[in-house]
Amino acid sequence: MRRLVNDPYDVVEEMLEGYVLAHDKYVKLLANDGRVVVSKKTPMQDKVGVIIGGGSGHEPLFIGYVGSGFADAAVVGNINTSPSPEPCYNSVKAVDTGKGCLFLYGNYAGDVMNFDMAVEMASQEGIRVETVLVTDDVYSSATIADRRGVAGDFFVFKAAAAKADTGASLDEVKDVAVHANHNTRSMGVALSSATLPASGPIFEMEDGEMEIGMGIHGEPGVKRGKLESADKVVDQIMPYILNDLPFNKGDEVNVLVNGLGGLPLMDLHIVYRRVAQILAKHEIKIHISFVGNYATSMDMIGMSITLIKLDEELKKLLDAPCDTPYCVIK
Amino acid sequence: MRRLVNDPYDVVEEMLEGYVLAHDKYVKLLANDGRVVVSKKTPMQDKVGVIIGGGSGHEPLFIGYVGSGFADAAVVGNINTSPSPEPCYNSVKAVDTGKGCLFLYGNYAGDVMNFDMAVEMASQEGIRVETVLVTDDVYSSATIADRRGVAGDFFVFKAAAAKADTGASLDEVKDVAVHANHNTRSMGVALSSATLPASGPIFEMEDGEMEIGMGIHGEPGVKRGKLESADKVVDQIMPYILNDLPFNKGDEVNVLVNGLGGLPLMDLHIVYRRVAQILAKHEIKIHISFVGNYATSMDMIGMSITLIKLDEELKKLLDAPCDTPYCVIK
Repeated sequence: MRRLVNDPYDVVEEMLEGYVLAHDKYVKLLANDGRVVVSKKTPMQDKVGVIIGGGSGHEPLFIGYVGSGFADAAVVGNINTSPSPEPCYNSVKAVDTGKGCLFLYGNYAGDVMNFDMAVEMASQEGIRVETVLVTDDVYSSATIADRRGVAGDFFVFKAAAAKADTGASLDEVKDVAVHANHNTRSMGVALSSATLPASGPIFEMEDGEMEIGMGIHGEPGVKRGKLESADKVVDQIMPYILNDLPFNKGDEVNVLVNGLGGLPLMDLHIVYRRVAQILAKHEIKIHISFVGNYATSMDMIGMSITLIKLDEELKKLLDAPCDTPYCVIK
Repeated sequence: MRRLVNDPYDVVEEMLEGYVLAHDKYVKLLANDGRVVVSKKTPMQDKVGVIIGGGSGHEPLFIGYVGSGFADAAVVGNINTSPSPEPCYNSVKAVDTGKGCLFLYGNYAGDVMNFDMAVEMASQEGIRVETVLVTDDVYSSATIADRRGVAGDFFVFKAAAAKADTGASLDEVKDVAVHANHNTRSMGVALSSATLPASGPIFEMEDGEMEIGMGIHGEPGVKRGKLESADKVVDQIMPYILNDLPFNKGDEVNVLVNGLGGLPLMDLHIVYRRVAQILAKHEIKIHISFVGNYATSMDMIGMSITLIKLDEELKKLLDAPCDTPYCVIK
């Protein structure tokens, strides 16, 4: 095991303790719930609360995107495990200003169950909470509603959060999130498993192998095979993404080439080069690109490619300034 | 090998091609030299040119810090190899406004030789170029001038660049860089080698081992040993750093817990937690902290800890806004 931790059962608490110390300009833990990271801008006034969350181990997702112009709170589960309903509910109590809250998270069964229970709990107190599930991982199911959420979270969360900052209603913010998710597609490749601090690799993958389409928790992909060149890998992934929405000639997109943790920034830019070549060939215009570790699986070696098709409103919302520990847009 | 590249001998060119495509709002390659990344703000007026550089494989260092409020250009060598004198010279020609230029880089023999040749070449054209070497790696030598530069580059470059943006003279900018370097100390730990795309690991390190004090290219550290807990590792590193300047009770510092590439952000925050505890015990005040991959060795698993002792001027310069692909301060 090549991890630098203390007791493996304390990693989430110790990470959060370090996180709020390191980024105390931006965030704090909720006084009554150590699994809720809230923006220091809270409590705010007359604004829909934007709450994101899920299992740990995907940092900087989710906690890295709490701050100004982005999420108001993140609810933190154990590694690859949904947060329980209580912190989800506590996050609502912390950020609701009377305009209601929006839960945004990737579509995983455990998260859906626990966040939905929190919706019920809030409802009993007269607080309206709506939910939008991110479902950007094209290979995870033929049925869009059954797909998992991966790095596309980044664009969906950002668009909805920027909309909430305009003073929009809960229905309007929800509509933006639904629309952003509708326009977002991702697919990735894994070259290794992540390493769990308590038990080691989640699955075995030999050095020199890869699996295109694999999920960030190791969910099965297209096929396990011999590692190919960056260009060949991108050439196999891009048709899945482009044909799914589909993205067409004349479309404008933002691009995210996302590292899963252990792949060098060098390789991510070599991947980006090929993505840009393919988009140019299809006459799809790139507005802004992001290249780096935005949604990881701890030390997993691999990457994913995300496109979001833009219209004027999404472009404006994604361009809007934000200031969080792991995403600053001026 | 778990790298995602094409021909291993093309990685630097393909990375740079992807880099300037992805971040074209900020940077471009010099038309006459594909190994010089320059800010799109160039040519500027009446400002000392701040030029950084060194071997590739440390991304986001150096190219990630070219932009507004930071370096004007970065000169790019092959992996772990100094750039040759020509691109160093070409970077001067590209950013000099008549006020001269400052070369800033980590203290490695190859870099010193080649950047110094470029100083001579520029001098023959009447352009004054000064040099400040970063020497923050406390374990690399007992003699400060012989020490290597590692993640402390980040603070030294930022302080000097912010000074240059005030319209200061070359001597004044150089003085700030010398002072920032004087106040900066780093030390790290490696849990694995980096993987060279053409030849694999630089050195062998068994799973479960670590080497405190190791350099980012694999230079020998204190001792090779069994991997210990995050707290125990930090407890061993911090005295080297604190006793070296030394940092004293009442001092104010910025902290950088830097990932070398493959260590999860979770672990970096667990490390940060212990650093903050130790600084609190010593009554050393933390101003701003940075936690993430700022100066890597590609996929090397490990981290380094950097402290810079602040005074009013350094604090102001490090706080000054900047906008580059891999460092945005609002």
